[in-house]
Amino acid sequence: MRYSELFGKTTKTAPHDAESTNARLLTQAGFIDQLMAGVYTFLPLGLLVLKRIQQVVREEMDAIGGQEILMPALHPKEHWNTSGRWNDPGKEVMFQFEGRGDKEFGLGWTHEEIVTPLAKRFIKSYRDLPVAVYQIQDKFRNEPRAKSGLLRGREFSMKDLYSFHANQESLENFYEEASAAYLRIFERCGLDAIVVEASGGAFAKYSHEFQVLTEHGEDHIFVCEGCRYAQNKEIAEITPGGKCPKCKKGKIEEQKAIEVGNIFKLGTRFSDPFELSYTDETGKKQPVVMGCYGIGPSRVLGSVVEVHHDAGGILWPESIAPLSVHLLTLGKEEDVRETAEALYLELWEAGIETLFDDRELSAGGKLADADLIGLPHRIIVSKKTLEKKGVEWKKRSEEKAKIVKTEKIIEVILGGEGEEGE
Amino acid sequence: MRYSELFGKTTKTAPHDAESTNARLLTQAGFIDQLMAGVYTFLPLGLLVLKRIQQVVREEMDAIGGQEILMPALHPKEHWNTSGRWNDPGKEVMFQFEGRGDKEFGLGWTHEEIVTPLAKRFIKSYRDLPVAVYQIQDKFRNEPRAKSGLLRGREFSMKDLYSFHANQESLENFYEEASAAYLRIFERCGLDAIVVEASGGAFAKYSHEFQVLTEHGEDHIFVCEGCRYAQNKEIAEITPGGKCPKCKKGKIEEQKAIEVGNIFKLGTRFSDPFELSYTDETGKKQPVVMGCYGIGPSRVLGSVVEVHHDAGGILWPESIAPLSVHLLTLGKEEDVRETAEALYLELWEAGIETLFDDRELSAGGKLADADLIGLPHRIIVSKKTLEKKGVEWKKRSEEKAKIVKTEKIIEVILGGEGEEGE
Repeated sequence: MRYSELFGKTTKTAPHDAESTNARLLTQAGFIDQLMAGVYTFLPLGLLVLKRIQQVVREEMDAIGGQEILMPALHPKEHWNTSGRWNDPGKEVMFQFEGRGDKEFGLGWTHEEIVTPLAKRFIKSYRDLPVAVYQIQDKFRNEPRAKSGLLRGREFSMKDLYSFHANQESLENFYEEASAAYLRIFERCGLDAIVVEASGGAFAKYSHEFQVLTEHGEDHIFVCEGCRYAQNKEIAEITPGGKCPKCKKGKIEEQKAIEVGNIFKLGTRFSDPFELSYTDETGKKQPVVMGCYGIGPSRVLGSVVEVHHDAGGILWPESIAPLSVHLLTLGKEEDVRETAEALYLELWEAGIETLFDDRELSAGGKLADADLIGLPHRIIVSKKTLEKKGVEWKKRSEEKAKIVKTEKIIEVILGGEGEEGE
Repeated sequence: MRYSELFGKTTKTAPHDAESTNARLLTQAGFIDQLMAGVYTFLPLGLLVLKRIQQVVREEMDAIGGQEILMPALHPKEHWNTSGRWNDPGKEVMFQFEGRGDKEFGLGWTHEEIVTPLAKRFIKSYRDLPVAVYQIQDKFRNEPRAKSGLLRGREFSMKDLYSFHANQESLENFYEEASAAYLRIFERCGLDAIVVEASGGAFAKYSHEFQVLTEHGEDHIFVCEGCRYAQNKEIAEITPGGKCPKCKKGKIEEQKAIEVGNIFKLGTRFSDPFELSYTDETGKKQPVVMGCYGIGPSRVLGSVVEVHHDAGGILWPESIAPLSVHLLTLGKEEDVRETAEALYLELWEAGIETLFDDRELSAGGKLADADLIGLPHRIIVSKKTLEKKGVEWKKRSEEKAKIVKTEKIIEVILGGEGEEGE
């Protein structure tokens, strides 16, 4: 990808909600563009990251047996009346409106009202259970406080999985598998998430949130400094300063955090009103027991930026970086240009996705942009490096650059040998 | 994929708008589920096809230099006031509603009002032109007649590309490239589309539609039986029965067709109200000239079913089939089961995506389901085939099955040798 041709370059302009670090850095680096509060366009670089996160989520959901489907965002009122949620929480959360013929619609902010009657079409017998379906799709919320960039949107990317079970035990087993899958997802995306007990609703004492500890978070949690057992402040039975009831050793602290996922035992909250049942081994009708499991890929993206940045810009984890290498030239000499052009092709041929800043711009401007954009590797070709028959290579996360022989740089990036100190 | 575990099996139930062939077959085959008129869930098999079509579109858009972005579906009223389209066509086409604080929103049915001010952020100079961006995203229409399955939806998948140019000549050149790319897309998806002249609006005599001739189409076009020069009936200057003005030989006929794509020279229709301009080589401000280019992947999916089916069900083209092989067993013998299980693993290892109908069901039921689902290849393992040390293999599009030696079947599917007549 040539930077000169890229749609969505770096900018000094900060968005209106510049109090949010993720919105500021992602906008300035040319990853997103704010259309209005809580609503963003993903530019080419931003969309690459979003897709990588979605793919990590997809792989882990497939690994626990989730089957991908795609439900609509446009919902009929009737389904939400069945659950009672058309009026409560109603317009507090949902965009609701009329179409032709006075038909009333809402925009999906969750999909229990759609997936439960859908499941009813296909679940008849105990042989059809357990089963789990998920989708990755944009959701909508009539959000009062959309000032946190990608952390709280009126429109946002969501992965929601729903599981269906013959009994509570089957749900509990799958719930544990899903929880483990969630921790793998966050780890793969470079987030250190902890499991936090939260309000459980009618069918379970607790639900579980996945929280990333950061001072920029909106959530307040009480967490053990030792074993990291945690509860959301809203429901906490533990108190800051007290001793952890789990490990009996650590002290409980209050911390701010970003919620990046949650899992919930629904029980028969939705199978009851939608009459979702199955016939058991003895021929008797039984209600289906459900669970739901949510992760917001766009919120994960914002959280990664909140956690992984420095004064110069973003530091993308390798696993979800839009591209791997930022290649740039300093100086206008012909052999500098030619070496960089040849290396650019070689990198792509070696499967190393490379952004080539081929603009005529000051050294300072190019280096600042590379820091802001935050790709994991930076390669500089200049008159100085060519004199040493090499290129300058630096990891974004490290201070010091090294000179590497031009013919060795691909090995170095791929993690092989060939590194040479300057 | 094991059919016994698949969410979304075949059903005898036809949807409410059963007059539409695509809705009937896709529902009965377990590809889609109707939530309400014009709004469908894509089940696992349906989503696989939709993604394959989207990927074909993506590859061809990338090939002509399109850069993928993702714009929101939730739009602020202000942008649509700028173009004048908040009121005209307004609610005739757009779902419009209020959120918190009396803020007015609309759901995107097209994205000129979003992409033009976005482009204004990044296009300053002639050096920034030409540039083209596209997205693949769900669009919404307040549709009065949503009775054609996936052909006319209230919510539907859309690829829309927008191109930006310094002058008309640059637009004309790109327009031709885009037109050729569109024909490649339809060909790759198994659709024989023709280019049809249609109403051009303020800035061009014609726009161009891509139409698939079929008696199930909603559009009426006049087309030359010889060279296939065509005009939409709505604007036609040619008349049925007359001689073709292009090839001077063929006769003009009236035909029904499905519109699967359209391309449009917008000129400065949107750059004027949004004041999208650039500085030319002489330092003078000039308006940017725009084009737009749409294909609906979900409509393409519906069109493929309208064109490729028989009395038994769907006939998927190889290029977009959800999976390649439908493997099934007839009879309950242990060696039949074991042979099929082993072959199932071998097929996947060879990269041949296979649906394995491992249910205990009558031969008739399994064969009817294979026809309905319509995967390109069918393999049967039975006592009879094992006696001949082989499996029965048939292409969905062909009448006659053959016995192929078990160890040769993968070669045969991959197009190698090893075929043997029965």
